[in-house]
Amino acid sequence: MTVVEIAKLVGGDFRGKAEREIRSVSALETAGPSDLAFAADSRAIEQASRSSAGCILVPTGSAVPGHTTVGVENPKLALIRAADRLLRRLRPAPGTHATAVVAADALLAADASVGPGVVIERGVRVGPRSQLGAGVFLGEGAQVGSDCVLHPGVKLYAGARIGNRVILHAGVVVGSDGFGYVFSDGRHQKFPQIGGVIVEDDVEVGCNTTIDRGSLGTTVIGEGTKIDNLVQIAHNVTIGKHCIIAAQTGISGSVNVGDYAVIGGQVGIGDHVEIESGARIGSKGGILPGKIVRRGPVIWGIPGRPLEVFKRQYAHLSRLPELASRVSAIERRLKERE
Amino acid sequence: MTVVEIAKLVGGDFRGKAEREIRSVSALETAGPSDLAFAADSRAIEQASRSSAGCILVPTGSAVPGHTTVGVENPKLALIRAADRLLRRLRPAPGTHATAVVAADALLAADASVGPGVVIERGVRVGPRSQLGAGVFLGEGAQVGSDCVLHPGVKLYAGARIGNRVILHAGVVVGSDGFGYVFSDGRHQKFPQIGGVIVEDDVEVGCNTTIDRGSLGTTVIGEGTKIDNLVQIAHNVTIGKHCIIAAQTGISGSVNVGDYAVIGGQVGIGDHVEIESGARIGSKGGILPGKIVRRGPVIWGIPGRPLEVFKRQYAHLSRLPELASRVSAIERRLKERE
Amino acid sequence: MTVVEIAKLVGGDFRGKAEREIRSVSALETAGPSDLAFAADSRAIEQASRSSAGCILVPTGSAVPGHTTVGVENPKLALIRAADRLLRRLRPAPGTHATAVVAADALLAADASVGPGVVIERGVRVGPRSQLGAGVFLGEGAQVGSDCVLHPGVKLYAGARIGNRVILHAGVVVGSDGFGYVFSDGRHQKFPQIGGVIVEDDVEVGCNTTIDRGSLGTTVIGEGTKIDNLVQIAHNVTIGKHCIIAAQTGISGSVNVGDYAVIGGQVGIGDHVEIESGARIGSKGGILPGKIVRRGPVIWGIPGRPLEVFKRQYAHLSRLPELASRVSAIERRLKERE
Repeated sequence: MTVVEIAKLVGGDFRGKAEREIRSVSALETAGPSDLAFAADSRAIEQASRSSAGCILVPTGSAVPGHTTVGVENPKLALIRAADRLLRRLRPAPGTHATAVVAADALLAADASVGPGVVIERGVRVGPRSQLGAGVFLGEGAQVGSDCVLHPGVKLYAGARIGNRVILHAGVVVGSDGFGYVFSDGRHQKFPQIGGVIVEDDVEVGCNTTIDRGSLGTTVIGEGTKIDNLVQIAHNVTIGKHCIIAAQTGISGSVNVGDYAVIGGQVGIGDHVEIESGARIGSKGGILPGKIVRRGPVIWGIPGRPLEVFKRQYAHLSRLPELASRVSAIERRLKERE
Repeated sequence: MTVVEIAKLVGGDFRGKAEREIRSVSALETAGPSDLAFAADSRAIEQASRSSAGCILVPTGSAVPGHTTVGVENPKLALIRAADRLLRRLRPAPGTHATAVVAADALLAADASVGPGVVIERGVRVGPRSQLGAGVFLGEGAQVGSDCVLHPGVKLYAGARIGNRVILHAGVVVGSDGFGYVFSDGRHQKFPQIGGVIVEDDVEVGCNTTIDRGSLGTTVIGEGTKIDNLVQIAHNVTIGKHCIIAAQTGISGSVNVGDYAVIGGQVGIGDHVEIESGARIGSKGGILPGKIVRRGPVIWGIPGRPLEVFKRQYAHLSRLPELASRVSAIERRLKERE
Repeated sequence: MTVVEIAKLVGGDFRGKAEREIRSVSALETAGPSDLAFAADSRAIEQASRSSAGCILVPTGSAVPGHTTVGVENPKLALIRAADRLLRRLRPAPGTHATAVVAADALLAADASVGPGVVIERGVRVGPRSQLGAGVFLGEGAQVGSDCVLHPGVKLYAGARIGNRVILHAGVVVGSDGFGYVFSDGRHQKFPQIGGVIVEDDVEVGCNTTIDRGSLGTTVIGEGTKIDNLVQIAHNVTIGKHCIIAAQTGISGSVNVGDYAVIGGQVGIGDHVEIESGARIGSKGGILPGKIVRRGPVIWGIPGRPLEVFKRQYAHLSRLPELASRVSAIERRLKERE
């Protein structure tokens, strides 16, 4: 694409060489003359003046002397749009690799791509243009929609249902048994884990994350929700649409999360917690079982409390040694007087 | 099974349609006329009145007008017993899939089931009726007892020993090298990680959990212990019988855990900790290296302390801003007097 | 090896049977007459007197009456050196297993070992004597140096670069997409994750750990760094040389870690944090985004602070109920006087 074509695509104003050819995207430091980069803030714009990028996306009104730029409202978002066009996706050829093991009654779209060593059990359906990486396992009756990418080593237990345009990264497990037992006769008796699991459209799930099926009910990951690596989602959890869940967070059984919630990394959420739409929980926070997390201020700490409360308590905690000294001084003074 | 047969199986009293045919189990909300459900508390019994379940397990003496019920001491446990009979396990056919790679000297029971792409190295033994899912790897000399289920992608390093009726979920690793180095000459020199690892009978291990072998000694997971997803068990750890370890918990090297311990999610346990039989540690707690965790009150927080102590401290922490104001007020008052 | 040969190898002084044959290493409790064990401190030396070990490495000047010993400066390190010689590594035969799927243009060293079910895409290079365990996946253009061990189920995304003598344990993922989105039009738009990932020489990475590629830049794990199980390394992270990162720790995007840093288990590090060379962070600590962690005292707690500060605050927190009582007593006394 030329600079002028990029400007048109992202709805921006260009300065500099209109006909320069741009072939890829890169960071400011590493970009070359055929790369597009972006600079979103003043620090980055200063850095941009030393970049060799062929074209730089900048906030409307900004300029980088001596450089070709395209001014837009949101340079980072504009880079996403341009990259969608510039970067050819490496799409494996359609068809089923000779080493894949596919049940006779599985329904695979003709243009789906099934990699080496993939195992597909009875009753599975895979939609158009979906890609199954090497060694993917689809258990009996699992369903995968269209345009999905299941990276190598993804495992779907029997009956798991995956929507359209879903990306599951390497090692993800969907539909495993939840962790439920009843203690009796000196041992833990396993409660049935036979429910469903649904991952809706446009969800992305990071590597080695685990999503358990419902015990009797259903686990649901709502449309557009993005989940990072090594996250644990327990049985009967319902997560709304367009949520963000960062790495290593754990969500216990029967938790409900609304839409557009943002949950940081290494957060722990006890069972039966309700998280309202738009609520936010800071990294490493802990929510006690059965609590309700309201939309509003970010929740912080263990147990979770509004960030301002946490900060105030923490400030006082930091001054606690001094407070203790002041109390001792008062006691001494009172004693002297007596 | 008919309602009367279920009542007999679980040792309960039925009310309603004795001959109704029940074919599966379900949750109250989703159950249909051929499903068994359960209602363990008053809220669930109220909900049960709106359920379409064909039969509902309830606490002895409870009734749900207009519904067929079976009264038992522990409805949830009764559901487990009934489900054991109602739900036919989908058991793969015995035999070894054509794509499995099995060492000539491996001893596999004739009725074991070895899935596609399984790799079995020299000296491995697999007992009667055990099932190895797609892509399972059993390293040299590994042993698997009878009636085990190893879900797809489970990996046993060389020499790992698994008892009977053990369930290992997808992506579990047993017998990996522990994390042990000696710092010398400016680098970390790897200490030998050549010990054993034993997973005893009736253990269940969740997806992508990792259990390291001993360095020189042996790592042991005791009979009947249940471990959730994404848990880390380090080298030389000994875990007793019938423990519960929730998701994302990490247990450091040389920790000893007694029997019937209950450890919440995202707990961290430092090395050489001793956890007494029956001890309980709340989610997200942290136990410092070398500590002893006594049986008794639940341990909470980082560093771990009895829940009552934690609550008292936390209550005072919440009131700390107010306490600081009171101290300031006292100081002002004293100053005014002088 | 004989005892005298071991003494020579580790530069130590032997007492006892010089010609005794030693064939393996073991722990003091389990060692037999042909095993080498070690005792590094006085408690272990006491224990050593009851050991059946054929030879015991002890600190210079120590003795274990009735036992053959070799005195050295660092017994644990000496055991590593002896084990390197005593323990024959089980090295799989060179060559490519018949079930592996290897792209025509992949360059594999003749003495590399490629296990069953391995998948190697176009443009991959694998160096001399490297071992690829069962089911390893190497994406397009991935590079693996010499003498590496990739355990079963390791997955390298396209373009990942692995140095020499690197050990990646089962289930490790290198080069997955980072977690980066821009929120627009009510949904999370995926930012390009097309950068590089480099794992330098002599790195070891524990099971099921995930290392994301750079978004536009590069993720780097420095030479000699050791990473435990279930760790998360996000995009654009740079980790220096010879660091230690314990299990279940998470490092957010664009963090820089210097050389010789030591990071405990379950630590969480916010994005854009700078960790100086030699800095140390205690287990379960949390570092807020953008902070700098200095070399010096161990950092502890959430948010992280020097251990001494943490201890002092924690001691005062423990006495807080008592402090509150003292303040109440003062108030009562003042009131009585008025």
